[in-house]
Amino acid sequence: MPELRKDPITGTWVIISEERKKRPKYYQIVVNKDMSIPQNCPFCPGNEAMTPPETYALRPDHSPANGPGWNLRVVPNKFPALRIEGELRKSGEGFYDKISGIGAHEVIIETSQHPEERGDIGSIQIQNTLSAARYRIMDLKKDTRFKYIMVFKNFGPTAGATLAHSHSQIVALPVVPLRVQEEIDGAQAHFDLKERCIFCDIIQYESEADRRLLMENEHFIVLAPYAPRFSFELAVYPKRHNPAFESTPDVELESLSSILSETLNKISRLLNHPDYNLIIHNAPCQNNVGDFYHWHIEFMPVLSRVAGFEWGTGFYINPISPEESVQSLKAV
Amino acid sequence: MPELRKDPITGTWVIISEERKKRPKYYQIVVNKDMSIPQNCPFCPGNEAMTPPETYALRPDHSPANGPGWNLRVVPNKFPALRIEGELRKSGEGFYDKISGIGAHEVIIETSQHPEERGDIGSIQIQNTLSAARYRIMDLKKDTRFKYIMVFKNFGPTAGATLAHSHSQIVALPVVPLRVQEEIDGAQAHFDLKERCIFCDIIQYESEADRRLLMENEHFIVLAPYAPRFSFELAVYPKRHNPAFESTPDVELESLSSILSETLNKISRLLNHPDYNLIIHNAPCQNNVGDFYHWHIEFMPVLSRVAGFEWGTGFYINPISPEESVQSLKAV
Repeated sequence: MPELRKDPITGTWVIISEERKKRPKYYQIVVNKDMSIPQNCPFCPGNEAMTPPETYALRPDHSPANGPGWNLRVVPNKFPALRIEGELRKSGEGFYDKISGIGAHEVIIETSQHPEERGDIGSIQIQNTLSAARYRIMDLKKDTRFKYIMVFKNFGPTAGATLAHSHSQIVALPVVPLRVQEEIDGAQAHFDLKERCIFCDIIQYESEADRRLLMENEHFIVLAPYAPRFSFELAVYPKRHNPAFESTPDVELESLSSILSETLNKISRLLNHPDYNLIIHNAPCQNNVGDFYHWHIEFMPVLSRVAGFEWGTGFYINPISPEESVQSLKAV
Repeated sequence: MPELRKDPITGTWVIISEERKKRPKYYQIVVNKDMSIPQNCPFCPGNEAMTPPETYALRPDHSPANGPGWNLRVVPNKFPALRIEGELRKSGEGFYDKISGIGAHEVIIETSQHPEERGDIGSIQIQNTLSAARYRIMDLKKDTRFKYIMVFKNFGPTAGATLAHSHSQIVALPVVPLRVQEEIDGAQAHFDLKERCIFCDIIQYESEADRRLLMENEHFIVLAPYAPRFSFELAVYPKRHNPAFESTPDVELESLSSILSETLNKISRLLNHPDYNLIIHNAPCQNNVGDFYHWHIEFMPVLSRVAGFEWGTGFYINPISPEESVQSLKAV
């Protein structure tokens, strides 16, 4: 059974998950070569038996579950960091705190097409993925053991992906993670002072200043944050104040997919198809943060290594200013 | 001029340092091949002119500065993330905060020997390095513009090192970084409640429980933390309560060097000379944290990639429990 442990000094939560050791080559940084051909890829049509049974699928021809005929599938992770079965138990060891490793860990297989090479990602694939994420979040939220549901995509081996077939991940957690809590605390402090959402303020300021604004459409805005930890880090915000991603209506999801596709393709062209991480920052499940939290997407291409300095301090060195990165991207 | 920027939501500080772009191959993850031979290595004897003038050196034969004849040199980083010259100015842009990028960035060249291959690291080299760090911290602390001085070692390309010749780094910062502040806040909360140092409590508990204790000597203890973010993460604590590394006397420095050398060599043997990061966590410069902060070393071998999940949440998945990693290391 995996276990969640809390660092008694900083409050950082860690999942100790021996299950993950069984994952092929968890020590290595290379993509499993055997998985790079469709016959061996567990995410390819025809290989449905290689994954646990699906929790959601897009099957336009109404084909039966767990066989071919799908455009997108969601399946439990075969090597889950957390387990769905069992009771949520909090316990201690000396003055340490731990929680049984209850949670969910699912994979969104975004397309049935195995990639031949790195190329543009279409807005239909993104829309299907976001729509599946929205459905799964709403379903997982019914389980009151979960405090936070996280959706993210690791693209490429240096970003942490172990399979080349395009996929995203969903993790339901029994605690709110530290970085999200820091965002909530920061946003609450701003709200207590000004009675305004800090994210709404940032959107308005950046839109007027136009120094770090990459693009916008009717519902969304893409910008480089004022203090980006990484070169070419970007943030995508809904213009309408909304704490929860899963309450995004279809019309906004379509608008988001189109701006996200355009952003990813600009990055691909400028930086030669880099590996990247993309994370949806969402309100916690049982949230009372509606006034001041504002869901958003964090995007970071993997261009350099994070080293001791960053680990030790939570302090980042970035050789490219956000103003410069936005200028380069606009010129693509 | 580099710039320090503060994220308005989480409070994370970022250095925007265009200077670092000039560093060879900052985009790539490989060690510069040209630097792997002593004729081209800026850290080898005879090449002293390739670095800025030294700020400290161990010269047993009293040879003149900035020529050969040394066992250890400290020099300013040729591509510093921060600059020593200039006035510390705080300013804003809209509601954003920034500080001029004042600071120091030095390199400790730990030995005159260019490495032929990865091997054991002797306790004399470690002692020389720690002694140089102690001297440089005391000197840099005289500059009241600095709030925090950080000492760390990135070993190997996947840990962020760009040169193979053994070195550590010193960075003096005009702010206290977020992760250190979190440690201070956590330690203060514990002290307010119990009037005890949380680090002293951990040392006592782990020493008695003997589940995560790797080794100890008269002055130091090496253990795996209860909630380690990374596999085989280790912490080294002085047994005597002491907030500031630079006030460590010679006898303790010798004891530390010996236990650190033994620890590194165990890791090397078990994990086949992995890349690693080693960081000294020290009290801030103008500290009033003496009652409850306790300096220590954080050690993390680089065995897997940090991915979107970790970045987005500050929440880590670790496939090996600290109890298991200590057992494996003890068996070496």
